[in-house]
Amino acid sequence: MNKRTDIEVIINNKRYTLRGYESEEYLQKVATYINNKYAEFKKQDFYRSLDTEMKNVLMNINVADDYFKLKKQQEQVESESDKKSEEIFDLKHEIILLQTKLESAQNELAATKSEYLEEQKKVIRLETELNESRKNR
Amino acid sequence: MNKRTDIEVIINNKRYTLRGYESEEYLQKVATYINNKYAEFKKQDFYRSLDTEMKNVLMNINVADDYFKLKKQQEQVESESDKKSEEIFDLKHEIILLQTKLESAQNELAATKSEYLEEQKKVIRLETELNESRKNR
Repeated sequence: MNKRTDIEVIINNKRYTLRGYESEEYLQKVATYINNKYAEFKKQDFYRSLDTEMKNVLMNINVADDYFKLKKQQEQVESESDKKSEEIFDLKHEIILLQTKLESAQNELAATKSEYLEEQKKVIRLETELNESRKNR
Repeated sequence: MNKRTDIEVIINNKRYTLRGYESEEYLQKVATYINNKYAEFKKQDFYRSLDTEMKNVLMNINVADDYFKLKKQQEQVESESDKKSEEIFDLKHEIILLQTKLESAQNELAATKSEYLEEQKKVIRLETELNESRKNR
């Protein structure tokens, strides 16, 4: 939180002193945003024909409209973000399944290799015995 | 887009007719939002002491402030959503790697099993031959 300060802003060509906790930079950004809206409004004939009160109401509605449009956008982004979280959960689950399958396949491979080696040894032993037996025939 | 219609709203206890493409429901939501702000403001002594112009400027700044605060929030949500996309990309990459490893382990397992079977057959054949040879001795 910033220190409470007085900040001068120009809004719709008038100077105002605002007192608050917001930074000068932030309040100037807000003022610029409002001034851009005034500039847009003033380009339109219907706006120039309105009285001050109606101009103010329109400005408030217009800024609030930006807020609600952004809110809708945000809800979409949040909903997409939630879907991504679900996808991450599913992908992590798939990874665990694959890791388990891989581990099991690797264990089975190691056991089969070891059995294969034992069988190879048996073959060598039997071949030797067979040769001996034939020699002694 | 809705048909262009006239919609009556009450803002700060005054009736206004708005012409636009927005739905009645939407404009009433916007009006309620602005009226809640007026209600909040009116609870505060400093606000009641201000002239109409300053009240309007404060209202505009307050609504714009909501907009910018929401915008900041949205940027955070979008940044989190982007990070999730990166995580999804990485997880999918990991899944492909694991699938490749699993496939390779399964192929190697099938080949080793087949070699093991061949070796088992050899053992049976050699044992038979050895028995024959010993019988003929």
